[in-house]
Amino acid sequence: MAENTAVYPGTFDPMTLGHFDLIRRGAKLYDRLIVAVAQTSTKQGAKFSAEERLDMIREDVKNAKLDNVTVKMLDGLLVDFCRREGAKVVIRGVRVYSDFEYEFQMALTNRRMAPEIETLFMMPSESLAYVTASTVREISAYGGDTAPFVTPAVQKRLVDANGR
Amino acid sequence: MAENTAVYPGTFDPMTLGHFDLIRRGAKLYDRLIVAVAQTSTKQGAKFSAEERLDMIREDVKNAKLDNVTVKMLDGLLVDFCRREGAKVVIRGVRVYSDFEYEFQMALTNRRMAPEIETLFMMPSESLAYVTASTVREISAYGGDTAPFVTPAVQKRLVDANGR
Amino acid sequence: MAENTAVYPGTFDPMTLGHFDLIRRGAKLYDRLIVAVAQTSTKQGAKFSAEERLDMIREDVKNAKLDNVTVKMLDGLLVDFCRREGAKVVIRGVRVYSDFEYEFQMALTNRRMAPEIETLFMMPSESLAYVTASTVREISAYGGDTAPFVTPAVQKRLVDANGR
Amino acid sequence: MAENTAVYPGTFDPMTLGHFDLIRRGAKLYDRLIVAVAQTSTKQGAKFSAEERLDMIREDVKNAKLDNVTVKMLDGLLVDFCRREGAKVVIRGVRVYSDFEYEFQMALTNRRMAPEIETLFMMPSESLAYVTASTVREISAYGGDTAPFVTPAVQKRLVDANGR
Amino acid sequence: MAENTAVYPGTFDPMTLGHFDLIRRGAKLYDRLIVAVAQTSTKQGAKFSAEERLDMIREDVKNAKLDNVTVKMLDGLLVDFCRREGAKVVIRGVRVYSDFEYEFQMALTNRRMAPEIETLFMMPSESLAYVTASTVREISAYGGDTAPFVTPAVQKRLVDANGR
Amino acid sequence: MAENTAVYPGTFDPMTLGHFDLIRRGAKLYDRLIVAVAQTSTKQGAKFSAEERLDMIREDVKNAKLDNVTVKMLDGLLVDFCRREGAKVVIRGVRVYSDFEYEFQMALTNRRMAPEIETLFMMPSESLAYVTASTVREISAYGGDTAPFVTPAVQKRLVDANGR
Repeated sequence: MAENTAVYPGTFDPMTLGHFDLIRRGAKLYDRLIVAVAQTSTKQGAKFSAEERLDMIREDVKNAKLDNVTVKMLDGLLVDFCRREGAKVVIRGVRVYSDFEYEFQMALTNRRMAPEIETLFMMPSESLAYVTASTVREISAYGGDTAPFVTPAVQKRLVDANGR
Repeated sequence: MAENTAVYPGTFDPMTLGHFDLIRRGAKLYDRLIVAVAQTSTKQGAKFSAEERLDMIREDVKNAKLDNVTVKMLDGLLVDFCRREGAKVVIRGVRVYSDFEYEFQMALTNRRMAPEIETLFMMPSESLAYVTASTVREISAYGGDTAPFVTPAVQKRLVDANGR
Repeated sequence: MAENTAVYPGTFDPMTLGHFDLIRRGAKLYDRLIVAVAQTSTKQGAKFSAEERLDMIREDVKNAKLDNVTVKMLDGLLVDFCRREGAKVVIRGVRVYSDFEYEFQMALTNRRMAPEIETLFMMPSESLAYVTASTVREISAYGGDTAPFVTPAVQKRLVDANGR
Repeated sequence: MAENTAVYPGTFDPMTLGHFDLIRRGAKLYDRLIVAVAQTSTKQGAKFSAEERLDMIREDVKNAKLDNVTVKMLDGLLVDFCRREGAKVVIRGVRVYSDFEYEFQMALTNRRMAPEIETLFMMPSESLAYVTASTVREISAYGGDTAPFVTPAVQKRLVDANGR
Repeated sequence: MAENTAVYPGTFDPMTLGHFDLIRRGAKLYDRLIVAVAQTSTKQGAKFSAEERLDMIREDVKNAKLDNVTVKMLDGLLVDFCRREGAKVVIRGVRVYSDFEYEFQMALTNRRMAPEIETLFMMPSESLAYVTASTVREISAYGGDTAPFVTPAVQKRLVDANGR
Repeated sequence: MAENTAVYPGTFDPMTLGHFDLIRRGAKLYDRLIVAVAQTSTKQGAKFSAEERLDMIREDVKNAKLDNVTVKMLDGLLVDFCRREGAKVVIRGVRVYSDFEYEFQMALTNRRMAPEIETLFMMPSESLAYVTASTVREISAYGGDTAPFVTPAVQKRLVDANGR
């Protein structure tokens, strides 16, 4: 049934363990989970290109054998993407208040544009809730150890990215 | 499948239009939705007995022909209730920040006791988000018109309760 | 003109310097300011009776020669009170977030019941914003000095109240 | 009287229905309302030039026959603008917490610089509170329908701006 | 030196693992840490008497060999207690926003009464931050397992208290 | 003892009276306080170069005879800096919620990387809490008077910077 498809949109620049925890949780709750990677380009300030971010997530999803998870590019409005994919549910992580207002505003705006799509908020594991992608980028830029915050696949790419 | 049963717990003293909006939304997302009415007694400060609150919700659920919604008494820990009912999902409304911290703390506490149960937060319609049961009780106590905030069934009982 | 009457409602148990600062500010902005004292009784947990709270505010309003300020009892719904008084504006102090949600919910609820009445939020002086009536009651109960937080008239009554 | 002039400052890039709701509310409360458009340029990241934003608001103010509303450019400090205009009141919309801290800090800073000017916070209609100018710009950039969020005059200009 | 004495005040009804984590952290930062147990009585709604709460903390402090920690009754104003003990620092845990406003207001009020005493806020471990004493009491009342939230000594007393 | 060294990191672009108030408070609580100036460059959007910001703080620290305060450049991760300096404590100001989330996330991230370092949050004087460096920059850019918000040394540099 279409209702059992959920979309988890984000920038994932890069995917943190908190993001990955949410992917795992979402994969248990829905028949099909689509991770939708926003197409912010490196010119717009992203550290990794959308393709790189998509590849990283795909690698970890594959390693974790999350067979009902697919990773796609999100180009355009989220509500249009959901309609094309037949998804009735959007899931978003709520870390401790962070970006909460933005999440609410986006969810209400999306509801106005597509009343049939429901946004559900989930909590990542509390031991991962404070990790943000921007902090990971900052630690990496200063040569700090990002192992406690990202998967090995992401960590490798962070090291590579700093070398280029 | 058990995963498609969700529980929506609360005190509902009384059920507001915001609560009812959430029941409708939840009923669309899950095969079966159980509204779980916390057994706070009038001695503990509730305006309506748990039985009265349960009856009111049942009446409105029936009127709205929400056939996959059942209303039950919640006596004991929420996680025990969910396990008995085979529910893997708890839904909670998040009005604009209100009680948000409490919600987070309860959700994380419940996760610690029952990691297999996921709490999902939903938003009621923005035009109903600000209505609280305590405000409804206060307006009713002063003889104000509660029609914009509750269903006709609840409104009738509020009037009756003030007369007794 | 009726529009130039504003109502400042509250419990004022007791009035703090923050409350009084707001009365002064409101008195400058409107032709007539009505301080509306909620009729919570000592049986309901108030330290001072509504009459005592009303007297205290009246005394300080008189001492400060705020001639366009009147102090009245608020018995019933705030919107009914405003209509009786021909007031189109309710002012409420917003201390740093404190009670902010409650304020928002009440203001939206009141707007639903009386769309012609507007609630405006003002800030007390930042050096008074943190003072709460409950803290004043607690300090007074332990025999601490409340002089930095309340007017001399209120301080005298706090001392008297502890002696009885 | 000068006290009856209020200033409603903002960037309005573009004006949303929430902004316009506040202009209407402010126009009822004061003899004269000045909408003050901050001179952020397109070079500084604005989508519309200050002149375009000023024109849009003027057009809608005229259409709505809000005769006591004037729209002016804000170049310099807000407190200086208010003094030149003889305004004693600044009104600001408070959407659900959004920018609330910034609002508080600005209001307290302005009070320090000009103690005679009071900032009052008002709530837009709850059905418009979540709309932000940045969301409108984003929806428009992706070719989404902005009709639920802005006036027809603004919507036309958004379409034109995307074509150029 | 007197500056190296810190006071950690609270109700501790009962002490959670989050409280105990803070005691451990405080004990590392100061030569002497005094845990000050507020004298709320069971008549005032506390589950455990102040003496019981004091005993529980003492038992755990002893078990953990925190030799520079003493546990005392707090009767009266906190600032008076600190002065008697020669403490210049009060430490308070800040769980995720919870009670944050109250903490700020108390700290600023205390600073006004005793400018020489500084309040410092610390974070408990993120895996314990969400645990509240009231949740522990609720879980215990329903016969749930409190082992993940309190020390064995506290858990034993919770079981005993339910039996009496 | 190493435990008595604390680090107060920040961008200080420029140092406000709120920052300076915190330096004074920190200097009283620790044997040695290191103000660590983040090396954001003017190319990265800072108004003052890191060297200029360091000089300004040093000048005021010297004028105030805060002999146990040293001002250093922070280049790299904060936890590495603390380890090199033998500091076990980081202090951060918490203005009214502002940046609070960011502070929490950074503190928990730092704790994960260096569990032996504790972050303590302090409050600046409530009459200075609302002042932000970005507001100061904005007021200065419009030729407003920054005297109520910064030290004379900083004010002079703001005037000089606007002239260049």
